[in-house]
This record gives sequence, C-alpha cells and structure tokens, in this order.
Amino acid sequence: MKLGFIGTGVMGAAMASHLLAAGHEVVVYNRTKQRATGLIEQGAKWRETPAAVAADSDVVFSIVGYPKDVREVYFGTAGIFAGIHEGAVVVDMTTSSPALAQEIATQATAQKVAALDAPVSGGDVGAKNATLTIMVGGDDAAYQRVLPLFELMGTHVNRFGTAGMGQHTKMANQIMIAGTMTGMVEMMVYAKSAGLPVDQVLTTLNGGGAANWSMANYAPRIMAGDYNPGFYAKHFLKDLRIALEEADKMQIELPATQLAHDLYAKMVDEKQLGNLGTQALIKLYAGWV
Amino acid sequence: MKLGFIGTGVMGAAMASHLLAAGHEVVVYNRTKQRATGLIEQGAKWRETPAAVAADSDVVFSIVGYPKDVREVYFGTAGIFAGIHEGAVVVDMTTSSPALAQEIATQATAQKVAALDAPVSGGDVGAKNATLTIMVGGDDAAYQRVLPLFELMGTHVNRFGTAGMGQHTKMANQIMIAGTMTGMVEMMVYAKSAGLPVDQVLTTLNGGGAANWSMANYAPRIMAGDYNPGFYAKHFLKDLRIALEEADKMQIELPATQLAHDLYAKMVDEKQLGNLGTQALIKLYAGWV
Repeated sequence: MKLGFIGTGVMGAAMASHLLAAGHEVVVYNRTKQRATGLIEQGAKWRETPAAVAADSDVVFSIVGYPKDVREVYFGTAGIFAGIHEGAVVVDMTTSSPALAQEIATQATAQKVAALDAPVSGGDVGAKNATLTIMVGGDDAAYQRVLPLFELMGTHVNRFGTAGMGQHTKMANQIMIAGTMTGMVEMMVYAKSAGLPVDQVLTTLNGGGAANWSMANYAPRIMAGDYNPGFYAKHFLKDLRIALEEADKMQIELPATQLAHDLYAKMVDEKQLGNLGTQALIKLYAGWV
Repeated sequence: MKLGFIGTGVMGAAMASHLLAAGHEVVVYNRTKQRATGLIEQGAKWRETPAAVAADSDVVFSIVGYPKDVREVYFGTAGIFAGIHEGAVVVDMTTSSPALAQEIATQATAQKVAALDAPVSGGDVGAKNATLTIMVGGDDAAYQRVLPLFELMGTHVNRFGTAGMGQHTKMANQIMIAGTMTGMVEMMVYAKSAGLPVDQVLTTLNGGGAANWSMANYAPRIMAGDYNPGFYAKHFLKDLRIALEEADKMQIELPATQLAHDLYAKMVDEKQLGNLGTQALIKLYAGWV
C-alpha cells in the first residue's frame, strides 16, 4: 500500500516515521520543505504539492495547523482532491471542525474516495512513542482498512461514528481540558496568594478528589517557570473556537467553555502569548506574577 | 486522653467511631441526638451541649455544616469556649472559612487553648474507611499532639501552616474541583448533543490528557441517572462562596471559579436542587435533559 503524508511538523514527522519504520513507501509534502528533511533521509519521497502526494497514494494522511490549512490542503488548486484517484482513502488527523470533516467526506464520496477524520491526543511525546489516542469518524470499511496503520501511530484507536464524529470526540476532550486548565491555574493563584506552600498543596491535591492529568503534568512546569509549549495556547484557542461554533449550531450553551475560550483569547490575541504552552494561562492572573 | 466529638452526621459519626474503636473515651454532642445513637451504642457518652463536651475533653473535634454552625458551636452561649479548660486542643474539621478559623485560634489563645483547623476530603467513603485526606492549619506543637488521632481517621495528613491554612488548602482543592466538574458536565452535554456514544467517549477521555477524578467517579453516575449526593451541591456552593470571599480579600480575581459558583448558585438557590450531588449540575443544561 502506497502512503502519503501531508504536514510534517513535530507531530506529523514523528507519526510518518512510524509508517516508514514499518516498511511502507511514503510520499510527503509540507509547506516548509526543510521540516521534511528527517523523513526524506529515512526514505520518504518528496512531492511538490498535496495533489502530487495524493496522485501517488492509496491512503493520504494529513495533519496541519488550522481548519483554513486543512481546506487549502484538500480543496486548493493543487490540493488532495485535485490529485486523488478512485478507491483511495483520505485521513485528516488535524484537530479541525466537524463541519469541515463532513464537507471533505461529501467531496470524497463524489470522487469515489473514502474519508476519515482522525484527530489525536497525546502530544509530541505520544507521537514519538506511538502511544497516541486516535479518535476516528467516517465509514467503517475505510476505518477497518486504515486501522493497521493507525495502530503504528497510536495505542488507543477508536471509531466514534460517521464523518465528523472523530472531531466531535476531540472537541469533547478539549472541553474537559478547558475545565482542568482553568481550575488548575486558579487553584494555584489562590494557593500562592494565601501564602500556602504550593508544592505541598499540589502533592496533597494529586492524591484526592481534585486529581487530574493537567495538574499532574502542567502544575510542576508552572512551578519551575517553564511555559514552553507541550501544547500551544494558540492551538487550544482554535480548538475551543471550533467547539463553541459547533455548540452554537446544536443550540447548546457551554458557559464554562465560553469563559475558558475568553481567557485563552485574552492570552493569545491581546497579550500575544499564543506561542507559549497552555499552562501559561496563569500569566493572566495578577495573583501569580 | 479524653476526646470530644461535636457533629455526628454521616462524616462525623464514621470519624468518631474510629476514635472509639481505638479505645479512646469519647463524649459526643449533635444537634439531632438521634444521629448519635450508633456511637452511643459503641460506647460514646452523650452530652447536652458543646460546652459540656468541651468541659470533659482534652481534645475536642467538630464537624458541622456551615460557618454559622461552626460559630454557634464555638462562640454560642453553650458553646465550646464556654466549657473548655486550659491546655485543651480544639480541632474544627468542618470545611469553613479561613477567617473564622483565625478567629477561633485567637479566642483559643486568649483561653490558653490550642486550635487547629483540619478540613477533610475523601467523602463518606473516606470517612468510613479511615482514608481521609486531612489538611491542617495551626500551631505545630498542637498538630503533633493530635496527629496520632488524625491518623486514626485519615491516610494523608499534612500541616500547611498557621491557623486558617488548612481551610485555605481545602479551598484550593474546591477551586480545582470546580474546574473538573464544570468541564465534565459541559463535555458530556456536548458529546450527547453531537450524537456521540457518550460511554465510549468517557472511556477514551479517561485514558488521556483529559483524565480526572471527577470524570472517573461522577460521569458514570450521571450516565446511570444517579444524582444522589456523594457530595451535596449545597455544601459545594458554600465552599465556593467562602473561596471567593477569601479571593476578594486577597484582591485576586478567579473568573472560572466565579462562573462555577454562579452555576451552582443557580442550581441550588433558583432550581432548589441543593440536596442532590454535585454531579446534578448537568440538570442545568438544556442539552442533557
């Protein structure tokens, strides 16, 4: 099976390398060619456009930045749909909008191509160690066909329904994390302002009903003054925007998620801190700095 | 050492029973005598007022409902301070205000009594199994003296500083939980509205970066339609009120905690659902019911 991979940033490069390591032929494209160098050295073949990747592939994976990038990669004049052939499968692993995933699926059907949306969680570490969680939406037959490839990249792979349901699951994940992140930073601001020994408070809270992954992983980074991105704040803001747009379409109100969005918007758009990690939200709070 | 225990509700009765089981003499008082029956059968002696309990005790524990109840139990005409003798220790284990804990400590000092604030987490199960987390503030010598008794009731016992610091730590804990609870219910509302298989989404989220204790423990109850109190919503609202009052005094803003407070206030005060568990917050959301 000939594979294509579009988007070879930190996540994509690690993921594609597992496909190569398993012995697959992989053709690649990235907006910045330089970032594909490692993969090319590992045996991947470079193509000049997404269309050219698609023309040479039975399964095309993409993982890029924002929904507008996904749109360009799929629907652009030199996009995937300009090169793909009947019977192929396209798999967008970007965290992107469920509505766009459905658009892609509709166009795919028109070209007798199968489409899956398959966003991931687990970050750069998960991508490197092939321990990603992969949340898939789309046709089941296509899912079964791609599953052995997903399993080269992740340890928790599940299909949640038709086109868009992978993205919806990822949105649910981000809504949950919006709660743990806002709660965590406000807890730390309170603890510090009260004069508590924050390290000791964290140890105690990690052992009880307040325990959560964000606190276990990000609170120690904040304590160490480490605001480097495990996950970019600007990307988290993008995800929360998508989640709220979808909630709006479903006519549901999510006030806590809206507030988290507003805080991250302030951090990213107003304070220009979007290239820091999500834990740097704490920099908004007068009680911390 | 003669022990006193004031407040024999679900939490207090279980905690006092561990003191009795270890062979201590315990005198008890509760607003509703009937709720002390089990302890009296186990060997506890009944007293008619907090003052009478204090008069017969070297260490007096209290765990009641609201700060106003704590105030009555300590400062009322038949309160602890009306009966306590020099050299005794008072230990309030109610989740109450740090400011009130400091007031109690000041009065205690005036009467040559030591005071600890020692709120707990771990709920009725933790109280029953003696696995509570106990967060202590107050004089270290008094803490060392009471520590063997705390260890009969809990497995994670720590002192966080002077009077009020136990309460401040508990507030930090509740601020963190405000995040996990609001995030959890909004995630579930979103997932259900999107038509996702919610059980399967929960399993996936529990294995990754969104994982947290609230989701692991309360989401299954919501799925089963079980809104019984593990922890009363009305008590959680009380805790968030205290946390925000303290934040206000420290001149810090905690917008996510404020929003969680407002949602629980709507649930408890407006919808009259305060006797349900904290997970019943989801009943506020149009997308769930």
